[in-house]
Amino acid sequence: MTESVSSEKNPLLKSVRRAVARGALTEDGWAVCEGFHLLEEALGSNCEIGAVIVAEPVKNAVSTHVRGLKRTRVIAVRERVFRELASTEATQGVIALVRPQEWTLEQLLRGRSLVVVLDGVQDPGNAGAIVRAAEAFGASGAAFLKGTVSPYNSKALRASAGSIFRLPVVAGIDEGLLIAALEQKRIAVYAAMPRAQKSIADANFQEKCAMVIGGEGRGVNPEIAARAMGVRVPTNGVESLNAAVAAGVMLYEARRQRTAA
Amino acid sequence: MTESVSSEKNPLLKSVRRAVARGALTEDGWAVCEGFHLLEEALGSNCEIGAVIVAEPVKNAVSTHVRGLKRTRVIAVRERVFRELASTEATQGVIALVRPQEWTLEQLLRGRSLVVVLDGVQDPGNAGAIVRAAEAFGASGAAFLKGTVSPYNSKALRASAGSIFRLPVVAGIDEGLLIAALEQKRIAVYAAMPRAQKSIADANFQEKCAMVIGGEGRGVNPEIAARAMGVRVPTNGVESLNAAVAAGVMLYEARRQRTAA
Repeated sequence: MTESVSSEKNPLLKSVRRAVARGALTEDGWAVCEGFHLLEEALGSNCEIGAVIVAEPVKNAVSTHVRGLKRTRVIAVRERVFRELASTEATQGVIALVRPQEWTLEQLLRGRSLVVVLDGVQDPGNAGAIVRAAEAFGASGAAFLKGTVSPYNSKALRASAGSIFRLPVVAGIDEGLLIAALEQKRIAVYAAMPRAQKSIADANFQEKCAMVIGGEGRGVNPEIAARAMGVRVPTNGVESLNAAVAAGVMLYEARRQRTAA
Repeated sequence: MTESVSSEKNPLLKSVRRAVARGALTEDGWAVCEGFHLLEEALGSNCEIGAVIVAEPVKNAVSTHVRGLKRTRVIAVRERVFRELASTEATQGVIALVRPQEWTLEQLLRGRSLVVVLDGVQDPGNAGAIVRAAEAFGASGAAFLKGTVSPYNSKALRASAGSIFRLPVVAGIDEGLLIAALEQKRIAVYAAMPRAQKSIADANFQEKCAMVIGGEGRGVNPEIAARAMGVRVPTNGVESLNAAVAAGVMLYEARRQRTAA
């Protein structure tokens, strides 16, 4: 059931453009997910899909090749109108509006938790890659502190490669509130700091813990650093790694310790 | 000794624009390095700096704050002209033209080598982050196969955070030629493949070895895969990781094995 929208002033299209520009959810809470891969990941998840917006030239390809779209609202728009929606030049002509699951902090901190905390990470590609690595290495969730890019930024969504539809995530959380919750649950807090004495290989990631990843350049917030154990990824003199690489290595080390035990 | 260039038709500026657009070195072999961080890394390296192009508004900041520029040609251009040179919107008003060191394949494969091979990695941010991780974890070099993004793409340069000025790198190499050189030197070849049986934790990265990282989506070239030992980064069901995260984790594991021994 494909409908056509020809005006770029259509309210839904306008709200999508605003969300892409702001790097956030639409006002109605939809994540703007670009490309076939994310559409398929969304269809395979438990998330509601509000609509799929397709560029006219790929309309038939979408309805023929993408399974599970039967009950989904499909909106076809002219290519020129579509291009104004998408955040990338290399767009594939498909955008899915997906409602992310809502998670509470409680849900992230359950059991033998392994929580990744993004503290000021600004690059959406890095943020998405961290969410992807968090799911891959068995983290219990990811907390995006205030001042961090939104996990629902279009580039972050793409870089998460669908992990955003499955991993428990909370966004825009206050650092004081998070620290209080971690302390109350007796969850150890480790902060990635290039000059820390302790190597991640000597940290105990088998216990329930949180790993704080700072933004590149600025690093971990001093208030959090003061309440955390600093750990460093051991390197040969290079001061810092890409934030997603550092997070991936720490998560790999945690998984290694937890599966060896 | 700052000179002013007002015409955007200046041959040097034109060659910079072409290099940024092509994602490669200029015709004269200069890498177009954007931002203060890369400039400082270049100044601290052994690489020749041909010129520094600055936007008029930051001209004084550059000559006052950046040390070691005395003997360097500084070219000031109007802000509008500068913006047409830079690949990013968030440019800092500084571009250094840096001549990368030239390396032979021999130099990469020396001693107890640990070579990262980029096979079709297209994302320049990932490629740069891999170069950065390669230096951080003590790799002997990085080989960029034909069909891979250039290590001298502006975004790759920035993502390398200066490691590109120090790590031995060869670019545009033919895969057959590389494999032959690796075999001749009896260097073990591991290829990252999400469905391989063997985990990287069970691979022997203590011996001299090469690690092949495929492009996302396409993976490792079948011809190389057939001559390599497939290894996977152990994950909880997620099929693949971001290419830079996968490379970073493999390099970390190699460093861990090599320093433990």
